Amino acid sequence: MASGVESELKGLSIEPLKLSHGVCKNMVEWHEQLNGIDFKPDFEYKLVKTMVFKPKAPKSETAPLIALIALEDSQTSSATVCKAVNVKEARLANEDAVKSALSVSTADVSPFSITSENSSALKVVLDKSLLDYHGKLGVHPNDSTHTIFISQKDLQDYLLKTNVEVIEVDFTSDVYASGSAGAAKPEAKKTAATQKPSAEIEGAALIGITVHKEIDFSGWYQQVLTKGDMLDYYDVSGCYILKPWSYTIWEQIQNLFGCYLEWFDARIKEIGVENCYFPMFVSSKVLEREKDHIEGFAPEVAWVTKAGSADLDEPIAIRPTSETVMYPYYAKWIRSHRDLPLRLNQWNSVVRWEFKHPQPFLRTREFLWQEGHTAHLTFEDANSEVLQILDFYAGVYEQLLAVPVIKGKKTDKERFAGGLFTTTCEGYIPATGRGIQGATSHCLGQNFSKMFGITVEDPFAKEGEGKEKLFVWQNSWGLSTRVIGVMVMIHGDNKGLVLPPRVAGHQVVIVPCGITTKTSHANKDSLYKDITKFAAQLTEAGIRVKADLRDSYSPGYKFNDWELKGVPLRLEYGPQDAKKGQVLSARRDSGEKSPISLNNLVPSVNKLLETIQNDLYQKAKHSFDSNIQKIDKWDDFVPALNQKKLVLMPFCLEEACEDDIKERSKRTDSGEAEDAKAPSMGAKSLCRPFDQPTGLIPGRTKCLACEKDAKEFTLFGRSY
Amino acid sequence: MASGVESELKGLSIEPLKLSHGVCKNMVEWHEQLNGIDFKPDFEYKLVKTMVFKPKAPKSETAPLIALIALEDSQTSSATVCKAVNVKEARLANEDAVKSALSVSTADVSPFSITSENSSALKVVLDKSLLDYHGKLGVHPNDSTHTIFISQKDLQDYLLKTNVEVIEVDFTSDVYASGSAGAAKPEAKKTAATQKPSAEIEGAALIGITVHKEIDFSGWYQQVLTKGDMLDYYDVSGCYILKPWSYTIWEQIQNLFGCYLEWFDARIKEIGVENCYFPMFVSSKVLEREKDHIEGFAPEVAWVTKAGSADLDEPIAIRPTSETVMYPYYAKWIRSHRDLPLRLNQWNSVVRWEFKHPQPFLRTREFLWQEGHTAHLTFEDANSEVLQILDFYAGVYEQLLAVPVIKGKKTDKERFAGGLFTTTCEGYIPATGRGIQGATSHCLGQNFSKMFGITVEDPFAKEGEGKEKLFVWQNSWGLSTRVIGVMVMIHGDNKGLVLPPRVAGHQVVIVPCGITTKTSHANKDSLYKDITKFAAQLTEAGIRVKADLRDSYSPGYKFNDWELKGVPLRLEYGPQDAKKGQVLSARRDSGEKSPISLNNLVPSVNKLLETIQNDLYQKAKHSFDSNIQKIDKWDDFVPALNQKKLVLMPFCLEEACEDDIKERSKRTDSGEAEDAKAPSMGAKSLCRPFDQPTGLIPGRTKCLACEKDAKEFTLFGRSY
Repeated sequence: MASGVESELKGLSIEPLKLSHGVCKNMVEWHEQLNGIDFKPDFEYKLVKTMVFKPKAPKSETAPLIALIALEDSQTSSATVCKAVNVKEARLANEDAVKSALSVSTADVSPFSITSENSSALKVVLDKSLLDYHGKLGVHPNDSTHTIFISQKDLQDYLLKTNVEVIEVDFTSDVYASGSAGAAKPEAKKTAATQKPSAEIEGAALIGITVHKEIDFSGWYQQVLTKGDMLDYYDVSGCYILKPWSYTIWEQIQNLFGCYLEWFDARIKEIGVENCYFPMFVSSKVLEREKDHIEGFAPEVAWVTKAGSADLDEPIAIRPTSETVMYPYYAKWIRSHRDLPLRLNQWNSVVRWEFKHPQPFLRTREFLWQEGHTAHLTFEDANSEVLQILDFYAGVYEQLLAVPVIKGKKTDKERFAGGLFTTTCEGYIPATGRGIQGATSHCLGQNFSKMFGITVEDPFAKEGEGKEKLFVWQNSWGLSTRVIGVMVMIHGDNKGLVLPPRVAGHQVVIVPCGITTKTSHANKDSLYKDITKFAAQLTEAGIRVKADLRDSYSPGYKFNDWELKGVPLRLEYGPQDAKKGQVLSARRDSGEKSPISLNNLVPSVNKLLETIQNDLYQKAKHSFDSNIQKIDKWDDFVPALNQKKLVLMPFCLEEACEDDIKERSKRTDSGEAEDAKAPSMGAKSLCRPFDQPTGLIPGRTKCLACEKDAKEFTLFGRSY
Repeated sequence: MASGVESELKGLSIEPLKLSHGVCKNMVEWHEQLNGIDFKPDFEYKLVKTMVFKPKAPKSETAPLIALIALEDSQTSSATVCKAVNVKEARLANEDAVKSALSVSTADVSPFSITSENSSALKVVLDKSLLDYHGKLGVHPNDSTHTIFISQKDLQDYLLKTNVEVIEVDFTSDVYASGSAGAAKPEAKKTAATQKPSAEIEGAALIGITVHKEIDFSGWYQQVLTKGDMLDYYDVSGCYILKPWSYTIWEQIQNLFGCYLEWFDARIKEIGVENCYFPMFVSSKVLEREKDHIEGFAPEVAWVTKAGSADLDEPIAIRPTSETVMYPYYAKWIRSHRDLPLRLNQWNSVVRWEFKHPQPFLRTREFLWQEGHTAHLTFEDANSEVLQILDFYAGVYEQLLAVPVIKGKKTDKERFAGGLFTTTCEGYIPATGRGIQGATSHCLGQNFSKMFGITVEDPFAKEGEGKEKLFVWQNSWGLSTRVIGVMVMIHGDNKGLVLPPRVAGHQVVIVPCGITTKTSHANKDSLYKDITKFAAQLTEAGIRVKADLRDSYSPGYKFNDWELKGVPLRLEYGPQDAKKGQVLSARRDSGEKSPISLNNLVPSVNKLLETIQNDLYQKAKHSFDSNIQKIDKWDDFVPALNQKKLVLMPFCLEEACEDDIKERSKRTDSGEAEDAKAPSMGAKSLCRPFDQPTGLIPGRTKCLACEKDAKEFTLFGRSY
């Protein structure tokens, strides 16, 4: 604890309870840490979130930073914060800005970071609910590895002593408001002069998203996933619950159960791949057989060492991937070239106990995926399969998820540990300007077959010649639930999820409208009957439709609810529509509304769904294309990254140069961090696109980074 | 080590290498034990199997026992053993018989169990391959916790000294033989007088099953699974690899990927269940929340304690089932009666680290299953779902797997830990006379909802009354890959697997026949083209068909291969068939052959498949029905069990009485053990059948076991 805080705390009414625990970078981790030390107080408490915003201002001006101090569960919208202090726009302050103003890092910030020394460069927005709360308040005493518990009185007294300007804001008064109806405005009471915020995030409601995707991307991502009913946080860190709304997307991709199109599983079966299941456990002996490979995974392997109360004789690993699990059996099963190709796939989960910051779908300790493992007689066969599978992966992104990707090869530095080469499809998240690896298809060459002794006799050897042993050529390829995270990040907006029709659990929702207390029972019944009939017609045509006939919710509530969940198309139907023989359609992606004649319901809906699917893709494609900058001098490299772009440039393909590029492109500018959670990272090579731009002249064009001969245009970017 | 062996071993050429390890009851465990102590010798070796058979003989006679001594990988058929010693039939000797003849238990038996004292009551059948083997031979020195390594010369010298009669048999000479063609007979060379065995297991081949289902059931089960390509053994004990041939059956049951009928997943979705995925990890705190429940699972829970090289702060369990994983979130998600029913299902794997003898599909440390977890407002809703799901489970067995089951309720003693009552469908394995729990659907009552605080306000409370909290009513239900094991055990025969058409990966295989070296290239081409066309026609009609056009195998080999794998229907097509415009069909279940006109191919095949499906069920049903003995006096109880029957009797339903029945029905007779692996177990109650026989008069009919009032007819049996 900073010594300044120690002395400040001495002034409090009573010596506060102080707990020690591990580092926590956000509210979720904070709770996990408290759970981890089995903290069970005999008093009621809530944690306090402290966030620092930097108003957007001309370079010449130094606007005061804004410190938001609020109860953990208050729905604080950044727009409301802006209005309260009368600035037009503000972003989360980056690490440097926080450090220079408050002398602590972002993770350690607390109300006690505000002192009489720095108070003039700050304004405080104080959550009114906090002042009304009678339990204890948990705060970090400028150090995220500790939590102390104080009263709201203690907090107020402390802030008073610092002389900081405090603006109280009632965030609750707007949380039930619907954007469409006349919403009650939040009240703001300024200690010196009262200001009224005049708008909040459009459509924000308690069930709605309360932060801007553009301002606090990781807060938005967390909200859009939990409020959109995709997942829930789980009490084992780095693990998440996939709720039916996201799981059904995975089912669509897999091609399970009543899917819209025949997808991944059907396609690989068509080319001869078979499904199987290998145990999740691997003995250490087997796991460690291929050295390069295991080196890549060892730090993340979870080990079972006990069963019941007994220690196991030797620890058993949970598979991080199944190369070494499966290949000893390939050696046993493959007796002759007639057993080739052997092409097996598993739909399973794997465990990689990452210690980096976990992120739902993108980086989780257990995740669902498919892993294909195949063995071939020749390199040509293996190679052609690798590319075929990559096309399927690109198809999952582009045709199902409406997410554009770029196909290419990884550089040697980035290829799969133990493999020959890795092909990849790479995506792009506009909100953060970061690239993301979508899925990879590896040619393993003969490395594993040599290690595991997977051989056949050469069927092409001439009679009489000694039959030579051939080592088989192998591939492995995997696609995980990460695809769902990428889709959410790209299409989602400030109203919630936006799901492409081909994977959405419900493609269409029908909501009865215009029913008032004056509507007769018979009229209502008739409307409901009609809606049930429409739903049956659409279902009959293979469209996944939901008739939302819940009586206890208003149409406005239902609109918000389904918008949050990203249902592509809403159909409204009321007494006026019945008279006109129509339903009113509303697109989730564009908000566009148009009537559909009941005579033409099924074809119109089908067409609209296809249009939405296509428009989502085109929009994302346009965004991707316009954010790839082809550069011709190194000086443009970092500025392009800082403009949230990916960079395409002639590259020597050498690992040393790649290391150097990463080092030279670390974020050193004092600009805003787009994503508070993103480290100020250097750029990595994403891929060597198959679709190469023209203009690279072998022997003449130089690598922009090192001036050696350029081999290929290579895509670089900051990335996940 | 028995002292007699110590002194005998002194006479060997050199002091043999001796290893200590854990108990091993069979060859698989023996290998596991050697792996467990990380035994890596610098010499080549094979383990020696020693099996004792008892010839079937009139009670008055005492025929000598037969000791088979063979290399672990020799395909020794019991029929060949019988022929070698000129007896008609022999079964594996039971524990008592082995002990009284050789003074060691079955697991400890070794060549050294034969001594000059007991040699006159024995004959030895010695595997000729063993005599030709130049590596070391691993044997147990009358003690399964040790292995010593000797040469074949040592072994022969030893046997010579005991004066036992030794009959050498060449098991290899028959292994490629096909039962249909004139097979080469195995040669037997008797040291004293040579005898020729005249027949072996019909159709036995190296790729075929070499033990009788009726004689060595567990040996048969192991062979039928591995040779039928269903699974492979794995290097982590108690875990098995599900190969595509068995995994596809699981897919059919699930209703994945191009299935024949819409099955389990489709049905539960139809009634409103949704799929999701919860993490495999559980914190100990959550796992241990419900005491009765965890008590049932605690000894079998696998614990992760390390990640990479770091110890975790607290151990994390791998789910043995997900009640306590999911229900804290049910408490969070269920806010109102409008959130009910909540009905979630997962297709996943769970881990129960059993220390009992593992058995593929039936008892494995990791297994695949679905687990449904639902919450309801009323008992009535929960109850009706429990029964609905049980019907689905019975449907999987009866309609898909052609396996009859009996539906009923478990007694209190046998119900799910922490639940209110358990419903079950119970199957029966004729070969061992044991019952087997097929799948269970539990009503959990309100026990878990009280423990986890899953409540809603009573929607039926009258206005103005204080709204009372209602605890929700919960169910959980699961069906595992065990179903595949049951199906194999029931339908399989001495030629291999017999798969019911509705779940078979290939329902039909077409094999070209009658092609000789004289067949012209054009004729062969034309046959192949026809076959490809037939396959396309059948595929078009939704039939899963395989055209086996492999050039390098003979029709006989292919017949054996597909019979082993249990493909329901084989179609043969040769030049003669082409002329007649027919294919020749051969049913796997009955062997029945009949021509099918090509004009009528699809409907005929469809009809035959339905007939096979139905006949398999009827046959199994007849066997089940005729092996349930309804008794009216206790004295018939144990004799019925000993005749491999299940017993139906009036029962008091009391736990103490049930314990007593188990004790009183332990196998004490000296009869043959049907299954060498089956412990001499007492009978358990299997279920209280919903379909109760008539004749139980409340207050008058007595429990046959304790003479108290009988409550219900209850099904008892020795069981898995």
